Amino acid sequence: MSRIHSLGCVALLATGGLLGVWSTSRAQAPATKEVAKQATQAQGFIKEFGTMWTFDAPPLEYWKATYDFAPDQAWLDRVRLASVRIPGCSSSFVSDNGLVMTNHHCARGCISAVSPADTNFQETGFIANSGAEERTCPGMWVDQLQSIEDVTTRVRGAVTATTPAEQVAQRDAIIETIQDECRAETGLTCQVVRFYQGGMYSLYRYKRFNDVRLVFAPEGKASFFGGDPDNFTYPRYDLDVTLVRVYEDGQPFKPTHYFPWSENGAAEGELVFVTGNPGSTGRLLTMAQMEYLRDVSYPARLKDFERRLDILRELSAQSEDARRQNENQVFGLENAHKAISGYLRGLVDPEIMGKKKSFEADFRRRIMADADLNQKYGTAWDNIARAQKELASFALESRYHTFGGSQLLNLAGGIVRWPAQAALSDADRLPQYRGEGLNRIRGFVLRDQPIDTEADKLSFASFLRAAQKELPANDLFLETVLAGRSPEVAAEALINACTLTDAAARKALLEGGAAAIASSNDPMIVLARKIEPMTRTQAARAAALRDVISANAELVGQAIFAAYGKALPPDATFTLRISDGVVKRYPMNGTFAPYKTTFYGLYARAAEFDNQPPWVLTQRWIDRQDRLDLATPINFVSTNDIIGGNSGSPVINRNAEVVGLIFDGNIEMLPNRFIFTDEVSRSVSVHSAGIIEALRKMYDADRIADELQGVAQPATR
Amino acid sequence: MSRIHSLGCVALLATGGLLGVWSTSRAQAPATKEVAKQATQAQGFIKEFGTMWTFDAPPLEYWKATYDFAPDQAWLDRVRLASVRIPGCSSSFVSDNGLVMTNHHCARGCISAVSPADTNFQETGFIANSGAEERTCPGMWVDQLQSIEDVTTRVRGAVTATTPAEQVAQRDAIIETIQDECRAETGLTCQVVRFYQGGMYSLYRYKRFNDVRLVFAPEGKASFFGGDPDNFTYPRYDLDVTLVRVYEDGQPFKPTHYFPWSENGAAEGELVFVTGNPGSTGRLLTMAQMEYLRDVSYPARLKDFERRLDILRELSAQSEDARRQNENQVFGLENAHKAISGYLRGLVDPEIMGKKKSFEADFRRRIMADADLNQKYGTAWDNIARAQKELASFALESRYHTFGGSQLLNLAGGIVRWPAQAALSDADRLPQYRGEGLNRIRGFVLRDQPIDTEADKLSFASFLRAAQKELPANDLFLETVLAGRSPEVAAEALINACTLTDAAARKALLEGGAAAIASSNDPMIVLARKIEPMTRTQAARAAALRDVISANAELVGQAIFAAYGKALPPDATFTLRISDGVVKRYPMNGTFAPYKTTFYGLYARAAEFDNQPPWVLTQRWIDRQDRLDLATPINFVSTNDIIGGNSGSPVINRNAEVVGLIFDGNIEMLPNRFIFTDEVSRSVSVHSAGIIEALRKMYDADRIADELQGVAQPATR
Repeated sequence: MSRIHSLGCVALLATGGLLGVWSTSRAQAPATKEVAKQATQAQGFIKEFGTMWTFDAPPLEYWKATYDFAPDQAWLDRVRLASVRIPGCSSSFVSDNGLVMTNHHCARGCISAVSPADTNFQETGFIANSGAEERTCPGMWVDQLQSIEDVTTRVRGAVTATTPAEQVAQRDAIIETIQDECRAETGLTCQVVRFYQGGMYSLYRYKRFNDVRLVFAPEGKASFFGGDPDNFTYPRYDLDVTLVRVYEDGQPFKPTHYFPWSENGAAEGELVFVTGNPGSTGRLLTMAQMEYLRDVSYPARLKDFERRLDILRELSAQSEDARRQNENQVFGLENAHKAISGYLRGLVDPEIMGKKKSFEADFRRRIMADADLNQKYGTAWDNIARAQKELASFALESRYHTFGGSQLLNLAGGIVRWPAQAALSDADRLPQYRGEGLNRIRGFVLRDQPIDTEADKLSFASFLRAAQKELPANDLFLETVLAGRSPEVAAEALINACTLTDAAARKALLEGGAAAIASSNDPMIVLARKIEPMTRTQAARAAALRDVISANAELVGQAIFAAYGKALPPDATFTLRISDGVVKRYPMNGTFAPYKTTFYGLYARAAEFDNQPPWVLTQRWIDRQDRLDLATPINFVSTNDIIGGNSGSPVINRNAEVVGLIFDGNIEMLPNRFIFTDEVSRSVSVHSAGIIEALRKMYDADRIADELQGVAQPATR
Repeated sequence: MSRIHSLGCVALLATGGLLGVWSTSRAQAPATKEVAKQATQAQGFIKEFGTMWTFDAPPLEYWKATYDFAPDQAWLDRVRLASVRIPGCSSSFVSDNGLVMTNHHCARGCISAVSPADTNFQETGFIANSGAEERTCPGMWVDQLQSIEDVTTRVRGAVTATTPAEQVAQRDAIIETIQDECRAETGLTCQVVRFYQGGMYSLYRYKRFNDVRLVFAPEGKASFFGGDPDNFTYPRYDLDVTLVRVYEDGQPFKPTHYFPWSENGAAEGELVFVTGNPGSTGRLLTMAQMEYLRDVSYPARLKDFERRLDILRELSAQSEDARRQNENQVFGLENAHKAISGYLRGLVDPEIMGKKKSFEADFRRRIMADADLNQKYGTAWDNIARAQKELASFALESRYHTFGGSQLLNLAGGIVRWPAQAALSDADRLPQYRGEGLNRIRGFVLRDQPIDTEADKLSFASFLRAAQKELPANDLFLETVLAGRSPEVAAEALINACTLTDAAARKALLEGGAAAIASSNDPMIVLARKIEPMTRTQAARAAALRDVISANAELVGQAIFAAYGKALPPDATFTLRISDGVVKRYPMNGTFAPYKTTFYGLYARAAEFDNQPPWVLTQRWIDRQDRLDLATPINFVSTNDIIGGNSGSPVINRNAEVVGLIFDGNIEMLPNRFIFTDEVSRSVSVHSAGIIEALRKMYDADRIADELQGVAQPATR
């Protein structure tokens, strides 16, 4: 039940929200002595690129002009140091005694890990009534950004070669060197971050805290009330908060900077900031790239989701057991469908795309107007467009000429391909076999896992029917697989006779190498042998085109930086940003969605669905309802610019006080991945007042609420 | 604040809901000895024509097949007799002592009329604590449908002439005769109703009750909570109910049939019926008519609303006083915009229009396949299409070549035109001057009313700017009005020098007749003289084309009846219908709208907008909140097919018990005017349980709640 990750991750299929644990291995850490000279960028503000500002280029003039707000460097430093990063999410120091606030869905790993054998804190919630009861989260860390340093010149200077491959190697090497030096010099966690697709490189230096302990988590039903249906939507009623504490040398860490608690939270219309680590956006994509997503990639993915959902629903209809077994996958696919549909909604909106088009035209004019820039970057857009067009020309084949329709065929494909790929040099392998890939695929083939052959038949037949519907009648792949049979008959025959359900059989083949594979009579192996060359040629062709796109996209990024400088915030990089916005209702379904929701609304929504899942209250929330002031806000919305990775970000006011905690976006926000708009798109946060009300009245956690509100400072905690 | 009426009425601009007081002078009253032979129509059910069934053709086979529900004739008779009609709305008997339930917004006239000088029951609500306190509603009546008789043969038989005008006269005469005879014979209120645009004529006989007294009305803020923004939308929290009592001979009337109160209301998924009087639908319109609305008429109206809203907002921005003064008009226009946008949403939906197109193709094939039908009706569609096309060809001129841009020009136009129109025979006049029109327009010109010349200048200049933008550069009308000046300068000059703000001046001109008008130097009169011929020619041309459309639409209606019989429910006629549906949640904004709302939700929505208007609770509702069981449902939705005129309809279960009270549709229902769908469109009702809870706990009205629930029968009431 982790939330949705950045676009394109397999994890998109996990059940979850718009935001969420941003999973990437890129996140390490680093920064500069001279932080943030403010750029003169107010005049360059282009709304559709959003407001994910870096701390070394806050748009001070724009803030002054728009909100009459002019923070000094001390304010910016304080806010930066109070905003901290955790694995895949954002968070912040919220007390002088090391308390860190994030989302429940960002701390699920810890909450599960610290649960005793007989209790699941995910279900029951967890409240530490004293410091001694706080439980260490294994493997969790907190990163505090110390400084940012522009290292573009040094990185560029090290790249002297002329071939792309050598250039990449030189760049990777200098980045490694910079990070190593930084670590050695400062003892900090150092990371060189690539902005504007290579237009700028910055060294981010983080202080890392490794002793993190769980202090408070509500029940999963309270943090994720409304479950998957309400996911990505608003009005919402979720107490998606968890508190942990950072320790140093066995004692609570005393941060110099933290966010005090606002007395009342934010009023409608009030300026608020979100400081956090957005994971990934695609706002610098070219029109051609967006059009490919719009016309080819997303429609195909949606169709694929629908096909798979049909199968799962058919399976689920067979028994209550089957339903329960497939439930999570159904929810996951439905959510992925909701997400992609949302992205697509932006891309098919003529007004939104019109803005992008105007921008690109202006941008290209600026580049063409400068002979030097034109020489360097002028052809990048057309190169990308050409490659996208070619990719589109065999997109159907790429979708269907694969091993992917059947789990058994997929294993057969892995077996057939492995020895040949292993024999090649790393650079000559298919992308997924490079580096660690080779061993990963081997492990995947050998892993002993039960295979439901009946489900695999349904799945394969459905895949083949879809292929039949879309591919030309004389398609070679289909002819090879079907051999004159119907999809159902072919799937039945191939899977019934297949021996690869047995892990030992797979192991024997893989270890027997090319010879064993060549002589196998297993029908799936035979089939995989026949289609492997076709799939390989196609995959290689697609990979080459993607390399062209990627290299030229890098040029476009550099060109953007050359043309606009830091006036445009760079695409999200899972590094610290500060986004401005206002708390604001929005037009929805003919009326308005209110700027905040209340506990009244939580009880309303439960009652209005007859307390059926996922609109279920725990017994605690039923029993203690009378204690609550039901008019207390629980969630609210604002126009801040966020995306996956921002989960757990604090929402603060001008005084850098906590007014809320980001945990999702509304469904209207999904198109913001590519083009930012704020007419109806909203960030969704837990309200500071709702957190206190729940801590005090629902969880008897005055100790924690007092600490947040600075009411008292007990000697020991 | 009356609700929205049928499409095309001026009253569309009144503030109000999707449903509402259906204003028409057509509603008189009538019926047949032999009621309702059930037609064998289950096989003919075509979903996009909806489910507004007449009581003489209930779709028994379809109900049996769909819901396993097979009511007998006694059930149908009981339901028919318990369902009664009031001016512009629907209602029902809900006790054996003559209590009638309708919407608050249907009884506003009565509630105002019975308010004493020092109190406004619209604001305070009204509760009669005894029969003696019940207050007579002046001019209100209740019609109970006694019988329905098919009189098609008699009407057709009387039409023997060959010219359309004579045919119309003959038809009107026979209808008048049938109604008169009926009245004389039965003492009932008799009305011949035209179904299928003339495909079928039925005599409806009503018993009319004229002594109607107010029993209970909540405060306007409770009945219309959420006001105009929430109007047409769901989730809703409106106690839009009012109870009146029918008296006969000074005593409460004892109806033989009434709807008892359901103990629990309806569960999700439950079959429910709505019995009421839908006012007007356009489901039998041809594709050409719908395309005209889609491409010409509605876009123009939306633009016009937007232009007028811009003016009103500009005026409102000048002072708080101006804002308050214009508020109702702004809300009204916004609501009209919402309604038309909703209708348009259906017409631009390719899937919805695709269904209509398929139906029309099938329908025309059936007609063409029968030589006789083809001879009679075959050319109707093309005739309509041709006329619509011609109308579209000068639609721009029709919009702008009018007196309508300025209030003063409009008065001048009336003055200039009146003597000439009065001199013509009735049939030769422009449509709006025919019959009563002549005197109405005279009255309008003479009425002494303040004219805000500054607002009129803004309005006229805006109208002229819009005309300039859309009409060709050399447009004669514009050249005449502007005479080389800018819109602003022209409006300023014309209005400053105009004397028609003075009612006496208008009277002098009108009474001075053609001579006085011809010699007037008032610049608006001069202008009106110049443009009158142009506007008249155009209006006459449009009127002639509309006659063609209307005559051919009648043929299409007859053809539908000939091809499908009663298997298709006829378009709404503000006569009694029974619609089946189920109580059901629906997909909304990425999640679900619940099937019901609760008092929790009412308090939530008030709190979530900080109790700002129109989300305001009265002091009673604030003070007495603790008395309520907040989980009690207040509103719910179902898939029944309703439209304006259905306001106040009872929602009943299989046992003919009241489970709710229709008061609106959701915004997704607006496209149903033309093509019925029930994926996301829903009827919105007050829940039976919410009415009882409010009566007992909020209004101390146990007397009334007991009567509804049949708990006790006090000797006197």
